Amino acid sequence: MKVLVNKKTGHIYYYKGPGDYHCKEGIIKEEDINTKNLVISTLRKEFYVFEANKFDYYNKIKRGPQILIPKDIGYIIARTGIDKNSVVVEAGGGSGGITSYFSRICKEVHTYELEEANCKIIEKNIEYLGLDNVNLINGNLKDYIVKEENVDLLFLDMPNPIEVLEENVRCVKLGCYIVCYLPSISQISELDKWIYENISDSLYIEEISEVSVRNWKVKGFISRPEHKKEIDHTAFLVFIRVY
Amino acid sequence: MKVLVNKKTGHIYYYKGPGDYHCKEGIIKEEDINTKNLVISTLRKEFYVFEANKFDYYNKIKRGPQILIPKDIGYIIARTGIDKNSVVVEAGGGSGGITSYFSRICKEVHTYELEEANCKIIEKNIEYLGLDNVNLINGNLKDYIVKEENVDLLFLDMPNPIEVLEENVRCVKLGCYIVCYLPSISQISELDKWIYENISDSLYIEEISEVSVRNWKVKGFISRPEHKKEIDHTAFLVFIRVY
Amino acid sequence: MKVLVNKKTGHIYYYKGPGDYHCKEGIIKEEDINTKNLVISTLRKEFYVFEANKFDYYNKIKRGPQILIPKDIGYIIARTGIDKNSVVVEAGGGSGGITSYFSRICKEVHTYELEEANCKIIEKNIEYLGLDNVNLINGNLKDYIVKEENVDLLFLDMPNPIEVLEENVRCVKLGCYIVCYLPSISQISELDKWIYENISDSLYIEEISEVSVRNWKVKGFISRPEHKKEIDHTAFLVFIRVY
Amino acid sequence: MKVLVNKKTGHIYYYKGPGDYHCKEGIIKEEDINTKNLVISTLRKEFYVFEANKFDYYNKIKRGPQILIPKDIGYIIARTGIDKNSVVVEAGGGSGGITSYFSRICKEVHTYELEEANCKIIEKNIEYLGLDNVNLINGNLKDYIVKEENVDLLFLDMPNPIEVLEENVRCVKLGCYIVCYLPSISQISELDKWIYENISDSLYIEEISEVSVRNWKVKGFISRPEHKKEIDHTAFLVFIRVY
Repeated sequence: MKVLVNKKTGHIYYYKGPGDYHCKEGIIKEEDINTKNLVISTLRKEFYVFEANKFDYYNKIKRGPQILIPKDIGYIIARTGIDKNSVVVEAGGGSGGITSYFSRICKEVHTYELEEANCKIIEKNIEYLGLDNVNLINGNLKDYIVKEENVDLLFLDMPNPIEVLEENVRCVKLGCYIVCYLPSISQISELDKWIYENISDSLYIEEISEVSVRNWKVKGFISRPEHKKEIDHTAFLVFIRVY
Repeated sequence: MKVLVNKKTGHIYYYKGPGDYHCKEGIIKEEDINTKNLVISTLRKEFYVFEANKFDYYNKIKRGPQILIPKDIGYIIARTGIDKNSVVVEAGGGSGGITSYFSRICKEVHTYELEEANCKIIEKNIEYLGLDNVNLINGNLKDYIVKEENVDLLFLDMPNPIEVLEENVRCVKLGCYIVCYLPSISQISELDKWIYENISDSLYIEEISEVSVRNWKVKGFISRPEHKKEIDHTAFLVFIRVY
Repeated sequence: MKVLVNKKTGHIYYYKGPGDYHCKEGIIKEEDINTKNLVISTLRKEFYVFEANKFDYYNKIKRGPQILIPKDIGYIIARTGIDKNSVVVEAGGGSGGITSYFSRICKEVHTYELEEANCKIIEKNIEYLGLDNVNLINGNLKDYIVKEENVDLLFLDMPNPIEVLEENVRCVKLGCYIVCYLPSISQISELDKWIYENISDSLYIEEISEVSVRNWKVKGFISRPEHKKEIDHTAFLVFIRVY
Repeated sequence: MKVLVNKKTGHIYYYKGPGDYHCKEGIIKEEDINTKNLVISTLRKEFYVFEANKFDYYNKIKRGPQILIPKDIGYIIARTGIDKNSVVVEAGGGSGGITSYFSRICKEVHTYELEEANCKIIEKNIEYLGLDNVNLINGNLKDYIVKEENVDLLFLDMPNPIEVLEENVRCVKLGCYIVCYLPSISQISELDKWIYENISDSLYIEEISEVSVRNWKVKGFISRPEHKKEIDHTAFLVFIRVY
């Protein structure tokens, strides 16, 4: 895959080939794409040509439910310290976005997803990205008794994580994290209340965080924050420690 | 290692043992630490007892130069897409903070550090964390010709990354990133100008980002941002694409 | 003037009357607008009906150059402490946006604006808002010798404030502020350098600020930051103290 | 009053005179303070000497309860559009901080404050700042029937604004605002719920905002956000429209 970026507007196109590339900014010749750094379309627009990298492939995965974006994925990885030796359990899998990060970074990933339609999307993405250590289960994690006590991270991207916490907390290694991804403060209030009343002798909310990324434009005499594109609110991250 | 957290104030202590733990909040018995979740010091303070996790170990590495914090480390990992198959080159190594993340997540890391004193700190941390794939070089990356063309990420944490860019750009795989960690906007202006004038046919500044994390306090009737502790400005991240 | 707000979407319409109001969401009867709090259009959309307030009138002023928004206007007012007894000089006037705030809050405002076309817009807005203490000058403030030494605030909304600072600093009362509104960090660097080299014995950059406003949606079970609308980067505010 | 600012550290001292000024950074002669721009203490520290301005006087008011800071005060002023013709009612008065802004900008201010001790502080500050249009009432606004229907802004700085909204909403002009200053999201949830269930035919939450200010350091080669001082979370601002 190649990435074509309009030199003037920054607009991005992904080229999978083969054949010439047709878009509303003109036609770009296959031969040019394969041999040049800077190409010109038939409508006289200039485009940079980049080899696709792993982030480009991530951006092109098949989507049902929205996928997590790097600001949140990265913070979860760095804050929990998961690595090549880690085992991750996640629910719900959604489109398998963060699944692909867990897979590429960790030893194994167990992904629970309720909806069959989403499971099919995840399977497609597993294949597309060539992931080989994802164990996908079409079901609700709360109905499974996760026996292994060797989980380094339990990641919960669901409206009501409490129903899982009632059942499956024991699978997480002592000292490690359950991370909940919750869009509303009121959800965190409920979670805090439930933990306080039911299970405060083994779960501890260590950190509640909101990550944001601001892009800058620094070019010639300009040096200012970019006018926003997408980096709106996604969700709060709740780091719960098992003890 | 265990982590002791004051139930009331949230103050954190790291216990390496053996023996009782003495701190200004009283003495805590070794036996209690090893057998209980919640312990009481001789000064009648309550402490949660957690098994240390990988983030705790990171926080306890030896420090010379300041280490990167998870907000920046995480975004670099997720935005560049490095994984188990990646080769990373970094300069300067500093105290080896982000080095340890690269090591635990990637295939191999080549770390250049000018100062011998810092190299000794990095070596200590490599040993302390049990890292086995870090190739540490006491020298200035600009003086080395990095021949391999298989680098997935070149990370530059230094005041003047231009001197490296003049020499070693070719080592990075096409389509992949050089990431510069720069505290001031004026440094980015200079970098942009230099690239524009010298090497704009093979380096492209794809993104300039500033990552921030805001902590929240959600407990009982309280639900508001925490009063700040540490999450000040660190640096801007410049993602330069090689093409 | 009345304000019609779509109950569901929050979309805003300004009704000046007389007559029924026609918009793409249907027709709303004049009689309803004048007698009810909640009206229904012919397309069965519900609208709240509000009396217009001063902020609504501000939003409806005639526009040439972009007008300042409340986050910046408010901070300038509160941080400089201007009030009913203050004299303000500003350049360039633009569309007269912040001019109207200065006028409604302060004793008198002297507004310099280079472009004749903009002056006409400002005049229209002065008339529209019924302002009676604005002295509008079609010219470049740098060409005027502002003799009075009784200015409480000199506000400069222009790309190169240095040319004014070379000439007219003496008009500002000792201890009071010159505020520059500058979109780029590089402009502030130049300003700082110029002050340092030329006039650091009487001008002191006391504060450089960036104001932001984040809107929240709190409704039923939802409590999260709003997905952004408009509150992007505008400019940095430089508070220069005259001494 | 004069303001002394340490040239190197930026540390601020307020000088009321008469006599030499003694502080831990040395003694500064009265004669120097009165005649020079830059003075040197007996401990060889350099200080800028500024005439105090209105913001300095604000910073020196007597304090019981914490006072609002300019970021919030300014946004309230600009967003509600209050001016020389406005009548403001506020409760609780606290230390009279924002009271002084309302007084200096508006026609008249009616301030309700429960605690007698706070009333004394407010009185001192009224005198200190020479305010002449503040009507201070030692009592709970909810117990008063505010008959006048000419209030342009009702400002509520109290944990439970609902008890006032039950009684005194009618005093606010149609189309104008009640602004609540609330530190926690959960308080806003309750407020929203109460309005929805009780009075949604005449009160409308138009905007919930969080204002922040970030300071920058731009000096020589440095151009980066300042390491934080004080600009933490204060409160959310809820703009409720009366209709």
